[in-house]
Formats: sequence, structure tokens, C-alpha cells
Amino acid sequence: MKKLLPFLALLISVNAAADPRATGDLGVVIERENGNALIVNTTEHKRLAKIEKLGDLSHASVVFSHDERYAYVFGRDGGLTKIDLLKDAIDKRIIQAGNSIGGAISQDGKLIAVSNYTPGGVKVFSADTLELVADIPADYGSGQRSKVVGLVDAPGQRFVFSLFDAGEIWIADMKNPKAPVLKKFKDTGKQPYDALVSPDGRYYIAGLFGEPGLALLDLWNPEAGVKHILSEFGKDDDKLPVYKMPHFEGWSVAGDYVFAPAIGQHKVLVIDKNTWDLHGTIDVAGQPVFVMARPDARQIWVNFAFPDNNQVQVIDAKDLSIVKTLSPGKGVLHMEFTPRGEQVWLALRDDDSLAVYDTETLQEIARLPASKPNGIFFSSRAHRIGL
Amino acid sequence: MKKLLPFLALLISVNAAADPRATGDLGVVIERENGNALIVNTTEHKRLAKIEKLGDLSHASVVFSHDERYAYVFGRDGGLTKIDLLKDAIDKRIIQAGNSIGGAISQDGKLIAVSNYTPGGVKVFSADTLELVADIPADYGSGQRSKVVGLVDAPGQRFVFSLFDAGEIWIADMKNPKAPVLKKFKDTGKQPYDALVSPDGRYYIAGLFGEPGLALLDLWNPEAGVKHILSEFGKDDDKLPVYKMPHFEGWSVAGDYVFAPAIGQHKVLVIDKNTWDLHGTIDVAGQPVFVMARPDARQIWVNFAFPDNNQVQVIDAKDLSIVKTLSPGKGVLHMEFTPRGEQVWLALRDDDSLAVYDTETLQEIARLPASKPNGIFFSSRAHRIGL
Repeated sequence: MKKLLPFLALLISVNAAADPRATGDLGVVIERENGNALIVNTTEHKRLAKIEKLGDLSHASVVFSHDERYAYVFGRDGGLTKIDLLKDAIDKRIIQAGNSIGGAISQDGKLIAVSNYTPGGVKVFSADTLELVADIPADYGSGQRSKVVGLVDAPGQRFVFSLFDAGEIWIADMKNPKAPVLKKFKDTGKQPYDALVSPDGRYYIAGLFGEPGLALLDLWNPEAGVKHILSEFGKDDDKLPVYKMPHFEGWSVAGDYVFAPAIGQHKVLVIDKNTWDLHGTIDVAGQPVFVMARPDARQIWVNFAFPDNNQVQVIDAKDLSIVKTLSPGKGVLHMEFTPRGEQVWLALRDDDSLAVYDTETLQEIARLPASKPNGIFFSSRAHRIGL
Repeated sequence: MKKLLPFLALLISVNAAADPRATGDLGVVIERENGNALIVNTTEHKRLAKIEKLGDLSHASVVFSHDERYAYVFGRDGGLTKIDLLKDAIDKRIIQAGNSIGGAISQDGKLIAVSNYTPGGVKVFSADTLELVADIPADYGSGQRSKVVGLVDAPGQRFVFSLFDAGEIWIADMKNPKAPVLKKFKDTGKQPYDALVSPDGRYYIAGLFGEPGLALLDLWNPEAGVKHILSEFGKDDDKLPVYKMPHFEGWSVAGDYVFAPAIGQHKVLVIDKNTWDLHGTIDVAGQPVFVMARPDARQIWVNFAFPDNNQVQVIDAKDLSIVKTLSPGKGVLHMEFTPRGEQVWLALRDDDSLAVYDTETLQEIARLPASKPNGIFFSSRAHRIGL
């Protein structure tokens, strides 16, 4: 029997991988403090694996390959890690910059772009090998270099991003990946600090730190240039201290409205998508951070900055009323809906757990352990523009 | 060595399954004549497997499990087949009725519903086992039974469908799957023949065969009842013979407009989604069958009934102009976009092939053989309401 043992060992190891795993209902959860990523199954509410040593994940985000096999994790320290969701392992990992803020995957799935503070610019990598394909330094003025923020993908194999120090918005057409064609919009507003693209990929909206209002670029009509909208939107004259600048991922374009967190105020802004004027505001329990629409756009879920970050409020998009105030646990940092919207996962950092809610009954239906979770990303993002 | 052979054989068979397959970029192509389904990979433009003996697929449709592992194929002859996309095999197959027209998967992914002509009604099965969970006979009037059409899933674990003979629309709330709660709307219009639900799951629209116009149900306000809209929509007084009644899957809700085929006319209708009035019409090359929006809603692709079914026209949603008329091949029966819209697959029945187009250059980039293909369904449908 001795001679058989190596064969048996091999057989067992192959068998372990032989029960095939589909990838449509997977997710990645970021454990901020210890730099890990959990692979989860959203149907079974189950942890499948823990991937360790991903560096500084204090501001991590994740995109997915078209086949939903690979997750690309962008770390704060310039780390870019490609995780194989079928093998529960790191496929490749590079440190691509000194200080990084986010990333995107191209429409065709072949390119991964990262926006960097240091050195300021966008680097573009092969999604397959993580080899550098293009380097776009954010040069402006007379030899100056800008931090880059608000990087998104857009239809037509484009990336769009903002230059914080320069006050510019750039479109990079990546049809020839080694020779990006840049279109630069100058004087678009002071210090754009984050941005989003609408779910259809048409509107790019950047928030401004240095002045009130927002910068709006219609990607169907780029020749019309960048418009300044919603001058009433901004930090409200220091009436309230701002505990956390809301991320633009926390905006929602839902039906005719855009729902956005009011900076420093206990309000959600409701913006008319046709006129880009303020339609109204909704009073909420704290300073909103994420204002996220359920995929059917009927409900808007809101979490809050400290000290109100143990609450979540649910808004009915039909009449803009608060349906319910939930107390899911301590330190609600992030939310992610299942793609058809029947459930939502909440990251409860200070409870070291993930809570799953039924969005119809608004009851908790499952809870999983996770160490200081600060981000939840489902593989269905692979199929959505701008994510 | 003889004793080792069984082990080696087992090892080899396990290894064959050991190269794992992700499921985010898979698709199922229906081969109408011979009753087969092809499994394809949309990234590699590749046929992976052929699944045979699925019965009468002359009017087949497909939905996918949440994890994108299983495809459920609804056949014209009442066959319901569950295909395992990881094992390239039929997982389960039943004949659930004598004559069937379509199906849907519930929001939670646990139920498969089928709409039947004979016997008229909806049957609901476990997505896991295909065991019957609920039977909803379409009884109306004094002991009459209606054909059921236009079955869709909607948020809130509901199915919505229309009774052709009764002129009724029913909502089935499946929260308790064994005891569906039915809400029936009567006198909704004569002979609803097909229907759709808007991508956000809010509006259910049924076409009427027995009278002009459409029946509209706002699922956010079901208490408001069914409204009759667009009385100018309908078969145009026999001015032109109708070669094919357009399916409602061929409608598109894109931005502020609904694009729909005009029955019997060489026109695409553009409907204002806010008022449900006709905004205008676009002259096209033939009687439109499918009028499908690219996922970013910038382009609308139109195919046609015989004798113009060798053409496809592309409309620019920005100014409602025809961008290009393509001649991809003979018998263009169906179209399916990749989820971020960079490519579209066309089923060319009379060329026995599938053509893949780049939607930016409008050039063909790949072609695959397929025997009389009449339907293309990508696994990303798993993540979309109403599909």
C-alpha cells in the first residue's frame, strides 16, 4: 500500500476541488484591521474562505472580472491583489503605487485602472497578468502633478477621473490600451474629491471640496463641457462638524431622482435628474454616508457617520417617507444588496459581524462573523456599468 | 501496476473536472429544429457543450439560477429542463404540461414558474428539485379556464401574468410558496397576448390582441388598478399583413422612453415613460420584432419579420436617428447584449450561425456555428429583475 499513498494524497487534493463552484452568488468582504478578504456565498449566507495579507485595506474597493471568477482588491497602500474566487487563493499581487484611492475595470474586462495619490495619476494594468499597460501621469499647469480621484469606467471602453489639485476632469479612451487618448476638461471646479457615473454610464458627477456645488459631465455630449450644478450642495458653513466626507459610491440614481447625502447635515438630498435642481430634502437620523437604492429603486437605505452609525434608515421612494429606523448593530460601515434586491448585507465593524436583512420584512435573517468589516462587494457587480 | 489502474482512471476522470469554470460569462443558445441547447462562453466566443433532447424548442425561453450555475429551459411542449452549466449535462427534466409558453424565476431564486396554455394556468416548481410546489389554475367566469401568457417575476417575491381568454391580470404573491395569495384584476382589456415588466420591476404592460391599446399596471400602486394606455397602439386595420406578432421581450425601457415595435408597420414606437403617450415613431426597414436597448441605453437594435429578417438597424437613442443598417446574415431571429453592452450576439437561423458584433465599431468580430439558432440567453440575466 505504501506505493499507493502518493496517489491517494493527490486524489484527495484533486477531489477537494472537484465539487464545482458557480460564481454568480459570491462576494468579497473586506476586514479592514487585519488586511484580509473573506469570500462569501450570498445564497447560503456562508463564509467560504479567508484570503490574508492584502496590505492596508482602510479604504479598499473591489471590482470583478466578467466571468465573476476574479476579484481585484484595491488597497490604500497601492496594493492591487487579484483573488481567484474558485481556488480561494491570491492569483497575483503587485504594489503599483505608494498611495492609492480606488480602481475600475474596463468595459471589455481586459483592463484594470487604479487612481493614485502618489505618484498622482492613473495606472492601467492587464486584468489577466497585472502587467502595466499604460501610465497616465496627472500632469497639469507648469510641471505640477495632481492626486487622482473619482475613477470610473464608462461605455465606449473609457475611464473617467478627476484631478483633485488641478480641478480637472479627464476622459481616457482605452480602445488602444497602450496609447490612451485623453480628453481634458479644465476649470471644472475646485478640488473634486470623489465622483460617480450614473448606472447607465451617461452622467459623470464630481463633488467639490473647494467650493459649493457639483461638476456634471454628460458623456453623451462631452463637447458641451462640464456644467456646475447644485450650488446649494456643499459643506454647510461649518454649522455642523463633518465627521466623514461621504463617498460618491453612496449616491443613488433611482428613477427620476438622485439621492445623495447632504454634507455635514442630517439630511438626504433628492435631486431631479432631468433638471439637476434640488427637488427636496429628507430629514434623517444623522449625517448620511451611504444612500443606496435597492435594485428595484423602491427603497433607499441610509447609514450614518459617528455618533449615529448604529442606525440604518429605510426611505420609501414612492413618497420619500422614512419607512423604518433599524438598529442592526454597532458601526454600520457599508451595505450591499443582492442583485434582485430581496436581501441586503450590512458590515457591522464594531460588532465584528455581517448582518443580512430581508428587505421586505426588514428583519435580520442571518449573521456571520467578520473581523472589523468595512466593505461588502458582490460578484454581480461584474455585470454593471460603473462598478 | 495493475492494481493502480483503477486509481489512475479515477484520477483522470476527476482531473477532467478539475479545471474550474466560472459562470459569469456563460450563455445558452437554443437550436430550434433539433431541440438542443448550446452552452457558450461569451468572453472567448466559444462553444463549450451541446445539450440534447430538450423537446420542442420552437418557442423556448431560459432563466438562470442566482449562482448562474443552472439554466432552466422552457419548451413549447411543456418540457422544463434544468441544465447544469458546470457539468455540461441535464440535471433534471420534467414534462409539466401539454402546451407551455414561458417561465420565470422568483426574486429569491427558489421557485420556477411556468405559464401554460393546456391546461391553462401557472405551475410553480422548486428550483432545486423541480418538484411541484403550487398549481394556479386560470379559472374564470363560470368554470372556464384561460390560457396564461406574459408571466414575469416582480419584486416582493411575486409573479405577474395575464389570462388571454379572460382578459384578466393576476398577481401571485409567493411569500408562502405553497399558498400563493392571488390578486386579480378583471376587465383589463381583450385578449392580452404577451407582457413585460420594466427593468426596475415597477410597471407591468400587457399587449392586447382583441382591441387597440395596452394594459398598464403600476405594481407600486396596484390599488389604482389597470389603466388602458396608447389606444393608437395595435394592429393597423390590416393595411399590412402581420408576419409575426412581436414578443414583449422585444420592448425596451431606456431612460425616459419605451421603445416598442409597431404591429404590422415599418415603425418603432417611442413612448414617453412619464405620461405613457406616444412621443413619436421611427421609420425602419421592416416590421420590427425585437427592439432592444444596449445596456447603457444609448443604442437601440432592431430586427425584423420576414421578408426583412436579414437586416438589423441600430438607432441612436440621443436623437432617435438610424445610425446604421447591418446585413449580418439570413434569418436574424434574436439578439443578446453582453451585460456591459460592448458586444451583441445575433442568432442567424438561416445561416446556421451566431454572429458577434462590437457595438462601438458595428463590425462583426466573431462567428460560431449553431444549427438553426432562435434564442440567445446569457447567465447575467440571473441578476436582473424580470428576466
